[in-house]
Amino acid sequence: MKAFLDQNFLLNTEAARVLYHEAAKECPIIDYHCHLSPKEIWEDIRYDNITQVWLGGDHYKWRLMRSAGVPEKYITGDASEHEKFLKFAEVLSKAIGNPIYHWSHLELRRFFGYEGVLNKDTAEEVWKLTEEKLHSEGFSSRGLIMMSNVDTICTTDDPVDSLEYHEKLDADKSFPVTVLPAWRPDKAMNLEKETWPDYLAQLSAVSGVKVDSFAALKKALHVRLDFFAAHHCSLSDHALNYVMYAPATEEQMEAIFAARLAGKLPSAEEEAAFKFAFMNAMAEEYHTRNWVMQLHYGCRRDNNLPMFRKLGPDTGFDCVDNSAPSAQTAAFLGCLQDKGILPKTILYSLNTNDNAAIDTILGCFQSDEAVGKIQHGSAWWFNDHFQGMTEQLTSLGNLGYLAGFVGMLTDSRSFLSYPRHEYFRRILCRLFGQWVEEGFYPEDLETLKGVVRDICYNNARNYFAFAKKEGV
Amino acid sequence: MKAFLDQNFLLNTEAARVLYHEAAKECPIIDYHCHLSPKEIWEDIRYDNITQVWLGGDHYKWRLMRSAGVPEKYITGDASEHEKFLKFAEVLSKAIGNPIYHWSHLELRRFFGYEGVLNKDTAEEVWKLTEEKLHSEGFSSRGLIMMSNVDTICTTDDPVDSLEYHEKLDADKSFPVTVLPAWRPDKAMNLEKETWPDYLAQLSAVSGVKVDSFAALKKALHVRLDFFAAHHCSLSDHALNYVMYAPATEEQMEAIFAARLAGKLPSAEEEAAFKFAFMNAMAEEYHTRNWVMQLHYGCRRDNNLPMFRKLGPDTGFDCVDNSAPSAQTAAFLGCLQDKGILPKTILYSLNTNDNAAIDTILGCFQSDEAVGKIQHGSAWWFNDHFQGMTEQLTSLGNLGYLAGFVGMLTDSRSFLSYPRHEYFRRILCRLFGQWVEEGFYPEDLETLKGVVRDICYNNARNYFAFAKKEGV
Amino acid sequence: MKAFLDQNFLLNTEAARVLYHEAAKECPIIDYHCHLSPKEIWEDIRYDNITQVWLGGDHYKWRLMRSAGVPEKYITGDASEHEKFLKFAEVLSKAIGNPIYHWSHLELRRFFGYEGVLNKDTAEEVWKLTEEKLHSEGFSSRGLIMMSNVDTICTTDDPVDSLEYHEKLDADKSFPVTVLPAWRPDKAMNLEKETWPDYLAQLSAVSGVKVDSFAALKKALHVRLDFFAAHHCSLSDHALNYVMYAPATEEQMEAIFAARLAGKLPSAEEEAAFKFAFMNAMAEEYHTRNWVMQLHYGCRRDNNLPMFRKLGPDTGFDCVDNSAPSAQTAAFLGCLQDKGILPKTILYSLNTNDNAAIDTILGCFQSDEAVGKIQHGSAWWFNDHFQGMTEQLTSLGNLGYLAGFVGMLTDSRSFLSYPRHEYFRRILCRLFGQWVEEGFYPEDLETLKGVVRDICYNNARNYFAFAKKEGV
Repeated sequence: MKAFLDQNFLLNTEAARVLYHEAAKECPIIDYHCHLSPKEIWEDIRYDNITQVWLGGDHYKWRLMRSAGVPEKYITGDASEHEKFLKFAEVLSKAIGNPIYHWSHLELRRFFGYEGVLNKDTAEEVWKLTEEKLHSEGFSSRGLIMMSNVDTICTTDDPVDSLEYHEKLDADKSFPVTVLPAWRPDKAMNLEKETWPDYLAQLSAVSGVKVDSFAALKKALHVRLDFFAAHHCSLSDHALNYVMYAPATEEQMEAIFAARLAGKLPSAEEEAAFKFAFMNAMAEEYHTRNWVMQLHYGCRRDNNLPMFRKLGPDTGFDCVDNSAPSAQTAAFLGCLQDKGILPKTILYSLNTNDNAAIDTILGCFQSDEAVGKIQHGSAWWFNDHFQGMTEQLTSLGNLGYLAGFVGMLTDSRSFLSYPRHEYFRRILCRLFGQWVEEGFYPEDLETLKGVVRDICYNNARNYFAFAKKEGV
Repeated sequence: MKAFLDQNFLLNTEAARVLYHEAAKECPIIDYHCHLSPKEIWEDIRYDNITQVWLGGDHYKWRLMRSAGVPEKYITGDASEHEKFLKFAEVLSKAIGNPIYHWSHLELRRFFGYEGVLNKDTAEEVWKLTEEKLHSEGFSSRGLIMMSNVDTICTTDDPVDSLEYHEKLDADKSFPVTVLPAWRPDKAMNLEKETWPDYLAQLSAVSGVKVDSFAALKKALHVRLDFFAAHHCSLSDHALNYVMYAPATEEQMEAIFAARLAGKLPSAEEEAAFKFAFMNAMAEEYHTRNWVMQLHYGCRRDNNLPMFRKLGPDTGFDCVDNSAPSAQTAAFLGCLQDKGILPKTILYSLNTNDNAAIDTILGCFQSDEAVGKIQHGSAWWFNDHFQGMTEQLTSLGNLGYLAGFVGMLTDSRSFLSYPRHEYFRRILCRLFGQWVEEGFYPEDLETLKGVVRDICYNNARNYFAFAKKEGV
Repeated sequence: MKAFLDQNFLLNTEAARVLYHEAAKECPIIDYHCHLSPKEIWEDIRYDNITQVWLGGDHYKWRLMRSAGVPEKYITGDASEHEKFLKFAEVLSKAIGNPIYHWSHLELRRFFGYEGVLNKDTAEEVWKLTEEKLHSEGFSSRGLIMMSNVDTICTTDDPVDSLEYHEKLDADKSFPVTVLPAWRPDKAMNLEKETWPDYLAQLSAVSGVKVDSFAALKKALHVRLDFFAAHHCSLSDHALNYVMYAPATEEQMEAIFAARLAGKLPSAEEEAAFKFAFMNAMAEEYHTRNWVMQLHYGCRRDNNLPMFRKLGPDTGFDCVDNSAPSAQTAAFLGCLQDKGILPKTILYSLNTNDNAAIDTILGCFQSDEAVGKIQHGSAWWFNDHFQGMTEQLTSLGNLGYLAGFVGMLTDSRSFLSYPRHEYFRRILCRLFGQWVEEGFYPEDLETLKGVVRDICYNNARNYFAFAKKEGV
């Protein structure tokens, strides 16, 4: 029997252990997609206790607690931080099978040196230990990043964002980590939302372009794309219900736009057509600028209206949407390809049933512009666990060129979540190790160490071509 | 090599063996969803031979025989019971990979003490042994239930049912098992069926409410809900094509209802709208009464018309329907939540591709009303096998709070099918054992025994809050 | 650790080794579905080098190279054959997880006796060795077939085909392998294609029936069906987007047909209705003639338009289409069953999410006309790998009668691809071996050897009832 979460956690063959400890482990982290606050990095914020770090905004943990029947008072309510932690510890101790069990214990081990098991009996001890550590040197936001051997971070930013903190961070040569913005123009696309006209007003103000037409919207976004590019951005991100193919004319777009501004919400068909046109316009820009386009889909958000009204978005009330037609995804990319404007693209579906469809779509649009020009993004959000990552890697291996994969990202809001890269790397090395152990691949560990280093670091470096921070 | 189906069947780690033999094995059974006949329990019926028990009504076995090319004569036709058994034995012996192989042998071992392998050569021996046993004491329907350590049984009952046998069973203190009705109003909902008007007539007669409008239908059902409640019912069940979200007005419902009574079949949209309204009305009642709502979907029934005409429904001609949009399931629950009428709910899809969608939907609607207020039902019907159960448990573990799961049910028509609970429990313990063995969870077997007992028994007891039979 | 791809490749239990080496290995191959050219068999063609065999038309390998960022010049372009091979060897050496890694090395071992590993360093050696062998005796198309212990081959043929080479091969008693045509009338069905009218003209010419109506189309196809039957054909194949159920009247068909001939493309509904009517007509013929109907679906083709224009179809630009409604598949078969015209049928979906739906559909239409009258086709194209085949076999085992499965086919364009049968057989024996090892099935290897031989050979022989070539 293997000890719980020891140094060879997940590494069940000799080959896996060699690959992890001699190759994967030491690779720096390029966290090319996360939701960290650049302001909080700049301000080098600190935490009073583990509840603030773990339960302050982590909707994964909130869901787990709600599922175990914990009253909201102890989750987002007015119970004390100490009480909340005790409740969480109690729930966690029986959360067998849930990745939060692994993440939490990895975080306790890697950041706080705690090698025990968190449960009702040890909760007090862990509370004190973590509190003490969090008040000691190096446990600020920047400290936690540095501790994790992070090389590059891409945040997620709205086109209207001032990028003030990115600018400050870039100028601060005392902090050697590159922190880059990523362009996420969802609010500009989602014309069906009530808040869309207000957003256009903001965009008009920031861009200096009065956004009163679809053409003007594109022009305003060009202004902001230039601004983001000037801040070393080379990466975009889109949240879509599904990747749609719904061609229409420019005139129809202007009509839909005008009607919406006049207060008429679009039909489902009009919405799809508008978003398709929007995505075409964005893709063309990305292609011209050699940016990467990330497409995230397969999610239905804010399903619990009373809780949405109370807590807002991203509070643990989203689910998998299983209705993305792969034919439209392929047709969208095919349309860009036909126009010669297909940028480097990463596809992520929250629905793991889409794995094989995605992996076969990739293969239709590869070229020598990049190794793995079209990528299947790492197992994401609800799938960021042992099965989810194993299945994504296996499917990509079966259907594509796994050695060209750009690898893991945290997608996280927490400065403690870098061990998810470790989790991914262990799972990757486990898989390779099993293939070697079974005689599915030769025992050529030197080649495999190279492949592991590529997936953990080099591929992302080459693919994104991020500017390294200068002068550090 | 492990011996075939020995005492450690499926238990491939020491931890699994400890968990099964020291915790799971002795838990009584709460079979909260089955299709047993309360009349047959009341009458304490007996069988002449194993064909009557095994092949009298078991469409799983019929399908297997048909798939092996056996003529219908030996399945539901006029061959002798002895001939039918010999055909089945021959087919079974080569049915590697099929759960019926395990179920049948578990039943032979647990009820008849037969430790051998059933095949052409042993069929005669098994025929005689089982015949002898079936004629000996304790092999009546009640005897088989008692032998299986069953605590509570919920049958499946139509709103018009008299519940006569439930009443008799409740009064009979010599039989210590609680037998409760479960409310299944499918016939009242399925207005597209030819037989719907006839059913309304029955419902009118039984309820004393003339069902000539949607409002009257709801009123009649309330009468019958009261009647079921008076018979200790606290559980409902619905068979749906998919869980739909199709809001319309009360007036539209009345128009659809009136048109249907006048002989006009509803359009697909009208049917969905009517069923959605129906489910809203039912859910509200369940919520008020603190009942549990079971939703079964993902099935297309009676696909073989000639055989349907010959044998009727539930004879082995159903298949998986893969077209349930998770967005509508989430929207339906969201709509109930928003109105404050979401009852405790169990979601079951026959399509295992829906596992992750279901598990993420659960998390959107949990609360402190119950541990796991919204549940992902156990792997069901076609999925009631090693892979199906393992996948359901793993997915629920990854995405929810597995320790709060209400566990297994038989969904069966046979008094011999309780070993499916054993099958489930072994699979559960195997999974936990592997996680411990791999170091994915600490070797804290006392905690895990508690979790195992919860999933096998305590959670169901707490969740359903069934009345225990009094005076026994 | 097992050596790479040794004689016990994939056989990780003693039972698996016994089953493979003592039963599976020696079964002849019935390759009932492939895309070999009967002309190339007749002409007994030869190759100059390994690039011609491996990279001349293999879009699997082309995709892999494109995914690794190799310029098209080295794939389908004007680089030398030697350069292309070097590029491929380099990419292959890092293609861990991809079945091409296994296929390629199996081919090197079985045909060329090369037991090493192909990579940059060994590429030159492999080039020379294979070149030498390819120029030696027995390395012609017929030689490669004979070397592989092939018994029967079914090619894929259009109704207008002259079957000239099938006739010649049938007459040539020096070649003992049976080479039969399979009927693939896709071009007659796909009325939405630009080339449809031209195709009808061809069909008119060949059949002697002027195809100016739907009735005439069916009549012309009957003529050609008779012609194919006279050439020992008893097998058909259809590529469908999905298996549709869209009933309409004969008059509507004629209207759609006439409109199309007049230049009006059908709507999506009309297209579905036409194809449904077409499939009904074909199925009736197959049923009358006791032919087998193969239905392949779940594919979206030619997604990359610029590459399609350059290279044509089947060049590596297809993907999985995930939108096949199982309810329509079931309804189509149910409709044929109701009319008494359901032929033996094999269902293949490129989307592995359809496995369970297919396996439950099978069970609705079985009968004593054949063991496994309705079959779930072997894991196909993108799924022809360890996971894909294991999942197809496991699902079929869980939900049907695996022992009645007709087994593997290559679906290939290459004379070197017969080791895919070996790959399948090893995976089958591995699965059975694990089930025995775990005690899921008794250690009755004699019975299992019979089942293995059935799946590898006997079932296909009985099911298809192919005429054996006479006089050889």
